[in-house]
Amino acid sequence: MKYDVAIIGSGPAAISAALTLKLHNKSIIWFGSKKLSPKVEKSEKIANYPGVPMVTGPELNRLYREQIEAMGLEITERQVTNIAATKRGFMVLGGSDIYDAKTVLLATGAVSGKGFPNEAELLGHGVSYCATCDGFLYKGKTIAVYCGSKDFEHEVTYLAELADKVYLFTPYDCDLSRENITVNPGKLKAICGEKKANGIELLDGTMLDVDGVFILRPAVAPANLIKGIDLNGADIVVDRNMATNKPGCFAAGDCTGRPYQLTKAVGEGNVAAHSIVAYLAE
Amino acid sequence: MKYDVAIIGSGPAAISAALTLKLHNKSIIWFGSKKLSPKVEKSEKIANYPGVPMVTGPELNRLYREQIEAMGLEITERQVTNIAATKRGFMVLGGSDIYDAKTVLLATGAVSGKGFPNEAELLGHGVSYCATCDGFLYKGKTIAVYCGSKDFEHEVTYLAELADKVYLFTPYDCDLSRENITVNPGKLKAICGEKKANGIELLDGTMLDVDGVFILRPAVAPANLIKGIDLNGADIVVDRNMATNKPGCFAAGDCTGRPYQLTKAVGEGNVAAHSIVAYLAE
Repeated sequence: MKYDVAIIGSGPAAISAALTLKLHNKSIIWFGSKKLSPKVEKSEKIANYPGVPMVTGPELNRLYREQIEAMGLEITERQVTNIAATKRGFMVLGGSDIYDAKTVLLATGAVSGKGFPNEAELLGHGVSYCATCDGFLYKGKTIAVYCGSKDFEHEVTYLAELADKVYLFTPYDCDLSRENITVNPGKLKAICGEKKANGIELLDGTMLDVDGVFILRPAVAPANLIKGIDLNGADIVVDRNMATNKPGCFAAGDCTGRPYQLTKAVGEGNVAAHSIVAYLAE
Repeated sequence: MKYDVAIIGSGPAAISAALTLKLHNKSIIWFGSKKLSPKVEKSEKIANYPGVPMVTGPELNRLYREQIEAMGLEITERQVTNIAATKRGFMVLGGSDIYDAKTVLLATGAVSGKGFPNEAELLGHGVSYCATCDGFLYKGKTIAVYCGSKDFEHEVTYLAELADKVYLFTPYDCDLSRENITVNPGKLKAICGEKKANGIELLDGTMLDVDGVFILRPAVAPANLIKGIDLNGADIVVDRNMATNKPGCFAAGDCTGRPYQLTKAVGEGNVAAHSIVAYLAE
Protein backbone atom coordinates (compact mmCIF):
# COMPACT_ATOMS: atom_id res chain seq x y z
CA MET A 1 0.00 0.00 0.00
CA LYS A 2 1.02 3.59 -0.38
CA TYR A 3 0.97 5.50 2.91
CA ASP A 4 0.00 9.14 3.14
CA VAL A 5 3.08 9.80 5.22
CA ALA A 6 6.22 8.10 6.47
CA ILE A 7 7.47 9.48 9.77
CA ILE A 8 11.14 8.89 10.52
CA GLY A 9 11.99 9.18 14.20
CA SER A 10 10.13 8.73 17.47
CA GLY A 11 11.01 11.74 19.58
CA PRO A 12 8.67 14.60 20.60
CA ALA A 13 8.47 16.13 17.09
CA ALA A 14 7.47 12.80 15.56
CA ILE A 15 4.96 12.08 18.34
CA SER A 16 3.36 15.50 17.98
CA ALA A 17 3.05 15.10 14.20
CA ALA A 18 1.72 11.54 14.48
CA LEU A 19 -1.07 12.58 16.89
CA THR A 20 -2.22 15.37 14.58
CA LEU A 21 -1.93 13.31 11.38
CA LYS A 22 -3.95 10.54 13.02
CA LEU A 23 -6.67 13.04 13.97
CA HIS A 24 -6.76 13.96 10.29
CA ASN A 25 -7.23 10.27 9.34
CA LYS A 26 -4.00 10.03 7.40
CA SER A 27 -2.43 6.60 6.86
CA ILE A 28 0.92 6.54 8.60
CA ILE A 29 4.00 4.33 8.53
CA TRP A 30 6.02 5.38 11.54
CA PHE A 31 9.65 4.26 11.92
CA GLY A 32 11.36 4.53 15.27
CA SER A 33 11.80 2.94 18.65
CA LYS A 34 8.86 1.93 20.83
CA LYS A 35 11.00 3.17 23.73
CA LEU A 36 10.77 6.63 22.13
CA SER A 37 13.47 9.28 22.51
CA PRO A 38 16.55 8.21 24.49
CA LYS A 39 17.34 11.92 24.91
CA VAL A 40 14.02 12.54 26.69
CA GLU A 41 14.50 9.32 28.70
CA LYS A 42 17.81 10.63 30.02
CA SER A 43 16.37 14.01 31.09
CA GLU A 44 16.35 14.34 34.86
CA LYS A 45 13.77 17.12 35.19
CA ILE A 46 12.02 19.18 32.55
CA ALA A 47 10.86 22.53 33.92
CA ASN A 48 9.65 24.40 30.86
CA TYR A 49 7.21 22.08 29.12
CA PRO A 50 3.86 23.85 29.48
CA GLY A 51 1.16 21.75 31.09
CA VAL A 52 3.41 19.07 32.56
CA PRO A 53 5.20 20.71 35.50
CA MET A 54 8.59 19.39 36.64
CA VAL A 55 8.35 16.10 34.85
CA THR A 56 11.15 13.53 34.64
CA GLY A 57 12.18 12.24 31.23
CA PRO A 58 11.08 8.63 31.89
CA GLU A 59 7.70 9.86 33.20
CA LEU A 60 7.15 12.05 30.14
CA ASN A 61 8.04 9.17 27.81
CA ARG A 62 5.55 7.02 29.72
CA LEU A 63 2.83 9.65 29.17
CA TYR A 64 3.76 9.78 25.48
CA ARG A 65 3.55 5.97 25.15
CA GLU A 66 0.11 5.90 26.76
CA GLN A 67 -1.10 8.64 24.46
CA ILE A 68 0.30 6.93 21.36
CA GLU A 69 -1.37 3.67 22.32
CA ALA A 70 -4.69 5.34 23.15
CA MET A 71 -4.68 6.97 19.71
CA GLY A 72 -4.08 3.62 18.02
CA LEU A 73 -0.71 4.63 16.63
CA GLU A 74 1.99 2.05 15.99
CA ILE A 75 5.73 2.35 15.66
CA THR A 76 7.60 0.06 13.25
CA GLU A 77 10.99 -0.74 14.72
CA ARG A 78 13.04 -0.67 11.58
CA GLN A 79 15.93 1.59 10.85
CA VAL A 80 15.46 3.77 7.82
CA THR A 81 18.68 3.97 5.89
CA ASN A 82 17.60 5.47 2.59
CA ILE A 83 14.80 7.61 1.18
CA ALA A 84 14.47 8.11 -2.55
CA ALA A 85 12.18 10.69 -4.12
CA THR A 86 10.08 9.26 -6.96
CA LYS A 87 7.65 10.91 -9.35
CA ARG A 88 4.69 10.43 -7.05
CA GLY A 89 6.25 10.34 -3.60
CA PHE A 90 8.99 8.53 -1.78
CA MET A 91 10.48 5.06 -1.46
CA VAL A 92 11.65 4.47 2.08
CA LEU A 93 14.08 1.69 2.88
CA GLY A 94 13.19 0.47 6.39
CA GLY A 95 15.24 -2.52 7.47
CA SER A 96 15.42 -4.54 4.24
CA ASP A 97 11.91 -3.65 3.03
CA ILE A 98 10.75 -0.82 0.84
CA TYR A 99 7.76 1.29 1.84
CA ASP A 100 5.87 3.71 -0.42
CA ALA A 101 4.71 7.03 0.95
CA LYS A 102 3.27 10.19 -0.57
CA THR A 103 5.10 12.42 1.92
CA VAL A 104 7.93 12.10 4.40
CA LEU A 105 8.50 13.71 7.76
CA LEU A 106 12.11 13.72 8.94
CA ALA A 107 12.19 13.90 12.73
CA THR A 108 15.52 12.21 13.13
CA GLY A 109 16.98 14.27 15.95
CA ALA A 110 20.26 16.12 16.09
CA VAL A 111 23.15 14.42 14.39
CA SER A 112 26.62 15.43 15.46
CA GLY A 113 28.61 16.22 12.38
CA LYS A 114 28.48 14.42 9.08
CA GLY A 115 29.90 11.10 10.16
CA PHE A 116 33.41 9.77 9.49
CA PRO A 117 35.57 11.09 6.65
CA ASN A 118 34.56 9.28 3.41
CA GLU A 119 31.44 7.83 5.06
CA ALA A 120 29.00 9.72 2.85
CA GLU A 121 31.14 9.28 -0.27
CA LEU A 122 31.52 5.50 0.08
CA LEU A 123 27.99 4.76 1.30
CA GLY A 124 26.70 1.91 -0.85
CA HIS A 125 30.28 1.20 -1.94
CA GLY A 126 31.59 -0.91 0.91
CA VAL A 127 29.97 1.29 3.56
CA SER A 128 26.56 0.22 4.85
CA TYR A 129 24.12 1.36 7.52
CA CYS A 130 22.14 -1.88 7.47
CA ALA A 131 23.41 -5.23 8.75
CA THR A 132 20.27 -7.07 7.70
CA CYS A 133 20.39 -5.68 4.17
CA ASP A 134 24.07 -6.03 3.35
CA GLY A 135 25.54 -8.46 5.89
CA PHE A 136 25.39 -11.44 3.51
CA LEU A 137 27.82 -9.66 1.16
CA TYR A 138 30.59 -10.09 3.72
CA LYS A 139 30.39 -13.82 4.41
CA GLY A 140 33.88 -15.00 5.32
CA LYS A 141 35.33 -11.49 4.98
CA THR A 142 36.90 -8.91 7.26
CA ILE A 143 34.76 -5.97 8.29
CA ALA A 144 34.83 -2.95 10.56
CA VAL A 145 31.70 -2.12 12.52
CA TYR A 146 30.97 1.14 14.30
CA CYS A 147 28.22 0.44 16.83
CA GLY A 148 26.85 3.71 18.24
CA SER A 149 24.61 2.23 20.90
CA LYS A 150 24.04 -0.99 22.84
CA ASP A 151 20.70 -1.26 21.03
CA PHE A 152 22.53 -2.35 17.87
CA GLU A 153 24.69 -5.07 19.42
CA HIS A 154 22.38 -7.80 18.13
CA GLU A 155 23.27 -6.57 14.63
CA VAL A 156 26.96 -6.81 15.47
CA THR A 157 26.45 -10.39 16.61
CA TYR A 158 24.60 -11.13 13.38
CA LEU A 159 27.46 -9.67 11.31
CA ALA A 160 30.02 -11.63 13.35
CA GLU A 161 28.17 -14.83 12.49
CA LEU A 162 28.71 -14.09 8.82
CA ALA A 163 32.08 -12.41 8.69
CA ASP A 164 35.41 -14.00 9.34
CA LYS A 165 36.79 -11.13 11.38
CA VAL A 166 35.16 -8.04 12.91
CA TYR A 167 36.89 -4.91 14.16
CA LEU A 168 34.32 -3.36 16.47
CA PHE A 169 34.31 0.31 17.48
CA THR A 170 31.99 1.61 20.19
CA PRO A 171 31.71 5.01 21.94
CA TYR A 172 30.80 3.17 25.19
CA ASP A 173 32.25 0.34 27.28
CA CYS A 174 31.37 -2.74 25.32
CA ASP A 175 31.42 -6.21 26.86
CA LEU A 176 30.52 -8.05 23.69
CA SER A 177 32.79 -11.09 23.66
CA ARG A 178 33.24 -13.37 20.69
CA GLU A 179 36.22 -15.13 19.23
CA ASN A 180 36.22 -13.25 15.92
CA ILE A 181 35.40 -9.79 17.32
CA THR A 182 38.17 -7.40 18.32
CA VAL A 183 36.55 -4.80 20.54
CA ASN A 184 37.85 -1.24 20.25
CA PRO A 185 41.26 -1.86 18.70
CA GLY A 186 41.69 1.92 18.82
CA LYS A 187 39.63 4.97 17.93
CA LEU A 188 38.18 5.03 14.41
CA LYS A 189 39.38 8.09 12.50
CA ALA A 190 38.39 7.59 8.88
CA ILE A 191 37.24 5.17 6.23
CA CYS A 192 39.70 4.57 3.40
CA GLY A 193 39.22 3.70 -0.25
CA GLU A 194 38.80 5.39 -3.60
CA LYS A 195 35.77 3.86 -5.30
CA LYS A 196 35.12 1.29 -2.62
CA ALA A 197 35.93 1.08 1.09
CA ASN A 198 39.01 -1.10 1.53
CA GLY A 199 40.38 -0.07 4.90
CA ILE A 200 40.12 2.08 7.97
CA GLU A 201 42.45 4.47 9.67
CA LEU A 202 42.73 4.69 13.44
CA LEU A 203 43.44 7.84 15.41
CA ASP A 204 47.00 6.64 16.14
CA GLY A 205 47.67 6.29 12.41
CA THR A 206 47.27 2.50 12.24
CA MET A 207 45.76 1.32 8.94
CA LEU A 208 43.64 -1.83 8.87
CA ASP A 209 42.56 -3.62 5.69
CA VAL A 210 38.85 -4.43 5.61
CA ASP A 211 36.36 -5.53 2.93
CA GLY A 212 33.52 -3.45 4.26
CA VAL A 213 32.44 -1.05 6.95
CA PHE A 214 29.12 -1.01 8.83
CA ILE A 215 28.02 2.12 10.62
CA LEU A 216 25.21 1.45 13.11
CA ARG A 217 23.81 4.63 14.60
CA PRO A 218 20.44 5.60 16.08
CA ALA A 219 20.20 8.53 13.67
CA VAL A 220 21.49 8.63 10.15
CA ALA A 221 22.68 12.05 9.02
CA PRO A 222 19.96 13.56 6.81
CA ALA A 223 22.41 14.18 3.99
CA ASN A 224 23.01 10.44 3.83
CA LEU A 225 19.34 9.59 4.22
CA ILE A 226 17.94 11.57 1.31
CA LYS A 227 19.98 12.90 -1.58
CA GLY A 228 20.09 16.60 -2.33
CA ILE A 229 18.42 17.85 0.81
CA ASP A 230 19.40 21.41 1.74
CA LEU A 231 21.44 21.67 4.90
CA ASN A 232 22.87 24.50 6.94
CA GLY A 233 25.79 22.81 8.67
CA ALA A 234 24.14 19.66 10.01
CA ASP A 235 20.67 21.26 10.23
CA ILE A 236 17.96 20.57 7.68
CA VAL A 237 16.85 23.86 6.12
CA VAL A 238 13.09 24.38 6.48
CA ASP A 239 10.69 27.25 5.95
CA ARG A 240 8.04 28.41 8.42
CA ASN A 241 5.80 25.53 7.24
CA MET A 242 8.57 23.02 8.02
CA ALA A 243 8.94 22.22 4.31
CA THR A 244 12.39 21.23 3.06
CA ASN A 245 13.64 21.97 -0.46
CA LYS A 246 12.27 18.57 -1.56
CA PRO A 247 8.54 18.79 -2.39
CA GLY A 248 6.59 16.51 -0.03
CA CYS A 249 9.48 16.17 2.38
CA PHE A 250 9.09 17.99 5.71
CA ALA A 251 11.28 18.10 8.81
CA ALA A 252 10.72 18.89 12.49
CA GLY A 253 12.53 18.82 15.81
CA ASP A 254 16.22 18.82 16.64
CA CYS A 255 17.16 17.91 13.05
CA THR A 256 16.13 21.43 11.96
CA GLY A 257 18.49 23.07 14.46
CA ARG A 258 18.55 24.83 17.81
CA PRO A 259 17.07 25.28 20.35
CA TYR A 260 17.26 21.55 21.10
CA GLN A 261 14.14 21.65 23.24
CA LEU A 262 11.22 19.29 23.34
CA THR A 263 8.74 22.17 23.48
CA LYS A 264 10.16 23.52 20.23
CA ALA A 265 10.06 20.01 18.78
CA VAL A 266 6.36 19.37 19.53
CA GLY A 267 5.49 22.75 18.03
CA GLU A 268 7.36 21.99 14.82
CA GLY A 269 5.82 18.52 14.63
CA ASN A 270 2.37 20.09 14.85
CA VAL A 271 3.12 22.61 12.11
CA ALA A 272 4.67 19.93 9.89
CA ALA A 273 1.57 17.72 10.30
CA HIS A 274 -0.70 20.55 9.19
CA SER A 275 1.54 21.29 6.23
CA ILE A 276 1.45 17.61 5.24
CA VAL A 277 -2.35 17.58 5.45
CA ALA A 278 -2.44 20.65 3.20
CA TYR A 279 0.11 19.14 0.79
CA LEU A 280 -1.89 15.89 0.49
CA ALA A 281 -5.06 17.89 -0.23
CA GLU A 282 -3.47 19.60 -3.25
CA MET B 1 13.24 49.52 36.49
CA LYS B 2 13.98 48.31 33.03
CA TYR B 3 12.77 44.77 32.43
CA ASP B 4 14.66 42.31 30.23
CA VAL B 5 11.43 41.45 28.49
CA ALA B 6 7.79 42.50 28.30
CA ILE B 7 5.46 39.66 27.38
CA ILE B 8 2.12 40.71 25.90
CA GLY B 9 -0.53 37.99 26.14
CA SER B 10 -1.21 35.04 28.42
CA GLY B 11 -2.01 32.13 26.12
CA PRO B 12 0.14 29.01 25.52
CA ALA B 13 2.86 30.85 23.56
CA ALA B 14 3.30 33.43 26.31
CA ILE B 15 3.28 30.77 29.05
CA SER B 16 5.89 28.69 27.21
CA ALA B 17 8.14 31.71 26.73
CA ALA B 18 7.69 32.89 30.33
CA LEU B 19 8.72 29.49 31.75
CA THR B 20 11.89 29.40 29.66
CA LEU B 21 12.80 33.07 30.26
CA LYS B 22 12.35 32.53 33.99
CA LEU B 23 14.69 29.53 33.88
CA HIS B 24 17.22 31.87 32.27
CA ASN B 25 16.79 34.36 35.14
CA LYS B 26 15.44 37.15 32.97
CA SER B 27 13.38 39.91 34.57
CA ILE B 28 9.90 39.79 33.12
CA ILE B 29 6.89 42.09 33.04
CA TRP B 30 4.03 39.95 31.85
CA PHE B 31 0.76 41.52 30.71
CA GLY B 32 -2.33 39.40 30.38
CA SER B 33 -5.18 37.76 32.24
CA LYS B 34 -4.64 35.55 35.29
CA LYS B 35 -7.44 33.42 33.86
CA LEU B 36 -5.13 32.76 30.89
CA SER B 37 -6.39 32.02 27.38
CA PRO B 38 -10.17 32.14 26.93
CA LYS B 39 -9.68 30.16 23.72
CA VAL B 40 -8.04 27.27 25.63
CA GLU B 41 -10.70 27.59 28.35
CA LYS B 42 -13.44 27.05 25.77
CA SER B 43 -11.80 23.93 24.27
CA GLU B 44 -13.81 20.83 25.00
CA LYS B 45 -11.13 18.20 24.44
CA ILE B 46 -7.60 18.56 23.16
CA ALA B 47 -6.36 15.32 21.60
CA ASN B 48 -3.04 16.27 20.04
CA TYR B 49 -1.06 17.97 22.80
CA PRO B 50 1.82 15.58 23.47
CA GLY B 51 2.14 14.48 27.08
CA VAL B 52 -1.33 15.55 28.23
CA PRO B 53 -3.75 13.06 26.66
CA MET B 54 -7.37 14.06 26.02
CA VAL B 55 -7.33 17.08 28.25
CA THR B 56 -10.16 19.59 28.57
CA GLY B 57 -9.40 23.27 28.11
CA PRO B 58 -10.25 24.26 31.70
CA GLU B 59 -8.09 21.40 33.04
CA LEU B 60 -5.14 22.43 30.88
CA ASN B 61 -5.48 26.06 31.97
CA ARG B 62 -5.51 24.83 35.57
CA LEU B 63 -2.27 22.91 34.95
CA TYR B 64 -0.78 26.02 33.37
CA ARG B 65 -1.79 28.20 36.33
CA GLU B 66 -0.20 25.77 38.80
CA GLN B 67 2.97 25.69 36.78
CA ILE B 68 3.13 29.48 36.49
CA GLU B 69 2.66 29.86 40.22
CA ALA B 70 5.20 27.17 41.06
CA MET B 71 7.76 28.97 38.90
CA GLY B 72 7.11 32.25 40.72
CA LEU B 73 5.78 34.00 37.63
CA GLU B 74 3.24 36.80 37.91
CA ILE B 75 0.80 38.23 35.42
CA THR B 76 -0.01 41.96 35.49
CA GLU B 77 -3.64 42.44 34.52
CA ARG B 78 -3.30 45.59 32.47
CA GLN B 79 -4.17 45.98 28.86
CA VAL B 80 -1.30 47.02 26.66
CA THR B 81 -2.49 49.57 24.13
CA ASN B 82 0.75 50.95 22.75
CA ILE B 83 4.37 49.90 22.34
CA ALA B 84 6.96 52.40 21.19
CA ALA B 85 10.47 51.45 20.11
CA THR B 86 13.14 53.65 21.68
CA LYS B 87 16.89 53.77 21.17
CA ARG B 88 17.55 51.20 23.86
CA GLY B 89 14.40 49.14 23.92
CA PHE B 90 10.68 49.65 24.22
CA MET B 91 8.18 51.75 26.14
CA VAL B 92 5.07 49.73 26.83
CA LEU B 93 1.82 51.45 27.79
CA GLY B 94 0.02 49.07 30.16
CA GLY B 95 -3.18 50.52 31.55
CA SER B 96 -2.15 54.13 32.16
CA ASP B 97 1.45 53.37 33.20
CA ILE B 98 4.57 53.17 31.11
CA TYR B 99 6.93 50.22 31.47
CA ASP B 100 10.49 50.01 30.11
CA ALA B 101 11.72 46.79 28.57
CA LYS B 102 14.77 45.79 26.57
CA THR B 103 12.78 43.35 24.44
CA VAL B 104 9.15 42.62 23.69
CA LEU B 105 7.36 39.36 22.98
CA LEU B 106 4.03 39.73 21.20
CA ALA B 107 1.85 36.72 22.00
CA THR B 108 -1.44 38.49 21.48
CA GLY B 109 -3.40 35.72 19.79
CA ALA B 110 -5.22 35.82 16.51
CA VAL B 111 -6.99 39.05 15.73
CA SER B 112 -9.82 38.90 13.26
CA GLY B 113 -9.22 41.56 10.68
CA LYS B 114 -7.85 45.00 11.24
CA GLY B 115 -10.71 46.44 13.29
CA PHE B 116 -13.35 48.87 12.09
CA PRO B 117 -12.86 51.05 9.05
CA ASN B 118 -10.89 54.19 10.10
CA GLU B 119 -10.02 52.64 13.48
CA ALA B 120 -6.28 52.50 12.82
CA GLU B 121 -6.25 55.86 11.01
CA LEU B 122 -8.02 57.77 13.79
CA LEU B 123 -6.37 56.01 16.74
CA GLY B 124 -5.19 58.79 19.06
CA HIS B 125 -7.47 61.21 17.24
CA GLY B 126 -10.78 60.60 18.89
CA VAL B 127 -10.35 56.83 18.89
CA SER B 128 -8.93 55.27 22.05
CA TYR B 129 -8.24 51.76 23.33
CA CYS B 130 -7.87 52.88 26.95
CA ALA B 131 -10.73 54.14 29.13
CA THR B 132 -8.43 54.87 32.07
CA CYS B 133 -6.01 56.88 29.93
CA ASP B 134 -8.40 58.95 27.84
CA GLY B 135 -11.80 58.84 29.59
CA PHE B 136 -11.36 62.23 31.25
CA LEU B 137 -11.21 63.88 27.83
CA TYR B 138 -14.86 63.09 27.27
CA LYS B 139 -16.43 64.52 30.43
CA GLY B 140 -19.96 65.66 29.57
CA LYS B 141 -19.62 64.52 25.96
CA THR B 142 -21.19 61.88 23.73
CA ILE B 143 -19.15 58.76 23.00
CA ALA B 144 -19.45 55.41 21.29
CA VAL B 145 -17.95 52.37 23.01
CA TYR B 146 -17.29 49.00 21.45
CA CYS B 147 -16.95 46.48 24.29
CA GLY B 148 -15.61 43.17 22.97
CA SER B 149 -15.98 41.14 26.16
CA LYS B 150 -17.80 41.22 29.50
CA ASP B 151 -14.36 41.62 31.13
CA PHE B 152 -14.31 45.26 30.00
CA GLU B 153 -17.76 46.28 31.27
CA HIS B 154 -16.25 47.97 34.32
CA GLU B 155 -14.47 50.28 31.89
CA VAL B 156 -17.76 51.02 30.17
CA THR B 157 -19.28 51.94 33.54
CA TYR B 158 -16.31 54.19 34.25
CA LEU B 159 -16.76 55.94 30.90
CA ALA B 160 -20.51 56.32 31.51
CA GLU B 161 -19.76 58.09 34.79
CA LEU B 162 -17.79 60.69 32.86
CA ALA B 163 -19.64 61.02 29.57
CA ASP B 164 -23.05 62.54 29.07
CA LYS B 165 -24.22 59.87 26.63
CA VAL B 166 -22.82 56.47 25.66
CA TYR B 167 -23.71 54.38 22.61
CA LEU B 168 -22.60 50.90 23.57
CA PHE B 169 -21.89 48.15 21.05
CA THR B 170 -21.26 44.56 22.15
CA PRO B 171 -20.87 41.29 20.21
CA TYR B 172 -22.71 39.48 23.03
CA ASP B 173 -25.99 39.90 24.97
CA CYS B 174 -25.27 42.76 27.30
CA ASP B 175 -27.39 43.47 30.35
CA LEU B 176 -25.56 46.60 31.40
CA SER B 177 -28.28 49.04 32.40
CA ARG B 178 -27.71 52.73 33.03
CA GLU B 179 -29.70 55.80 32.24
CA ASN B 180 -27.15 57.34 29.88
CA ILE B 181 -26.13 54.10 28.10
CA THR B 182 -27.92 52.99 24.95
CA VAL B 183 -27.08 49.31 24.52
CA ASN B 184 -26.65 48.05 20.96
CA PRO B 185 -28.50 50.74 19.03
CA GLY B 186 -27.58 48.76 15.93
CA LYS B 187 -24.45 47.08 14.53
CA LEU B 188 -21.36 49.26 14.35
CA LYS B 189 -20.08 49.50 10.77
CA ALA B 190 -17.45 52.22 10.70
CA ILE B 191 -15.90 55.16 12.47
CA CYS B 192 -16.34 58.51 10.70
CA GLY B 193 -14.17 61.62 10.63
CA GLU B 194 -11.36 63.13 8.61
CA LYS B 195 -8.67 64.22 11.05
CA LYS B 196 -10.63 63.34 14.17
CA ALA B 197 -13.43 60.88 14.89
CA ASN B 198 -16.74 62.78 14.92
CA GLY B 199 -19.32 60.09 14.28
CA ILE B 200 -20.12 56.47 13.65
CA GLU B 201 -22.00 54.67 10.94
CA LEU B 202 -24.29 51.75 11.70
CA LEU B 203 -24.86 48.78 9.43
CA ASP B 204 -28.34 50.07 8.50
CA GLY B 205 -26.82 53.37 7.32
CA THR B 206 -27.74 55.40 10.40
CA MET B 207 -25.15 58.07 11.24
CA LEU B 208 -24.63 59.12 14.85
CA ASP B 209 -22.59 62.13 15.96
CA VAL B 210 -20.10 61.37 18.72
CA ASP B 211 -17.12 63.20 20.23
CA GLY B 212 -15.04 60.08 20.65
CA VAL B 213 -14.93 56.32 20.19
CA PHE B 214 -13.53 53.74 22.62
CA ILE B 215 -12.66 50.29 21.36
CA LEU B 216 -12.24 47.77 24.20
CA ARG B 217 -10.97 44.41 22.99
CA PRO B 218 -9.00 41.57 24.61
CA ALA B 219 -6.43 41.74 21.83
CA VAL B 220 -5.33 44.83 20.04
CA ALA B 221 -4.37 44.30 16.40
CA PRO B 222 -0.55 44.23 16.22
CA ALA B 223 -0.51 46.96 13.57
CA ASN B 224 -2.18 49.29 16.07
CA LEU B 225 0.00 48.14 18.97
CA ILE B 226 3.41 48.82 17.49
CA LYS B 227 4.05 51.07 14.53
CA GLY B 228 5.71 49.75 11.42
CA ILE B 229 5.56 46.08 12.23
CA ASP B 230 5.57 43.84 9.15
CA LEU B 231 2.33 41.98 8.60
CA ASN B 232 1.11 39.42 6.12
CA GLY B 233 -2.62 39.98 6.20
CA ALA B 234 -3.32 40.02 9.92
CA ASP B 235 -0.33 37.78 10.76
CA ILE B 236 2.89 39.16 12.18
CA VAL B 237 5.78 38.26 9.88
CA VAL B 238 8.52 36.37 11.76
CA ASP B 239 11.61 34.44 10.78
CA ARG B 240 12.55 30.96 12.06
CA ASN B 241 13.84 32.59 15.26
CA MET B 242 10.46 34.31 15.82
CA ALA B 243 12.05 37.71 15.26
CA THR B 244 9.90 40.43 13.70
CA ASN B 245 11.27 43.20 11.49
CA LYS B 246 11.72 45.36 14.64
CA PRO B 247 15.00 44.55 16.40
CA GLY B 248 14.27 43.26 19.90
CA CYS B 249 10.61 42.57 19.12
CA PHE B 250 9.63 38.91 18.81
CA ALA B 251 6.28 37.23 18.26
CA ALA B 252 4.83 33.77 18.92
CA GLY B 253 1.56 31.87 18.80
CA ASP B 254 -1.62 32.53 16.87
CA CYS B 255 -0.58 36.13 16.10
CA THR B 256 2.06 34.75 13.70
CA GLY B 257 -0.52 32.79 11.71
CA ARG B 258 -1.86 29.29 11.20
CA PRO B 259 -2.09 26.57 12.36
CA TYR B 260 -4.00 28.02 15.34
CA GLN B 261 -2.90 25.21 17.62
CA LEU B 262 -1.63 25.34 21.14
CA THR B 263 1.12 22.83 20.38
CA LYS B 264 2.43 25.14 17.67
CA ALA B 265 2.11 28.08 20.08
CA VAL B 266 4.15 26.52 22.90
CA GLY B 267 6.86 25.60 20.39
CA GLU B 268 7.08 29.15 19.08
CA GLY B 269 7.07 30.56 22.60
CA ASN B 270 10.03 28.35 23.43
CA VAL B 271 11.97 29.40 20.33
CA ALA B 272 11.17 33.09 20.95
CA ALA B 273 12.41 32.82 24.54
CA HIS B 274 15.74 31.39 23.39
CA SER B 275 16.05 34.10 20.75
CA ILE B 276 15.38 36.76 23.39
CA VAL B 277 18.05 35.27 25.66
CA ALA B 278 20.51 35.36 22.75
CA TYR B 279 19.49 38.94 21.83
CA LEU B 280 19.99 40.15 25.41
CA ALA B 281 23.43 38.55 25.51
CA GLU B 282 24.61 40.52 22.48
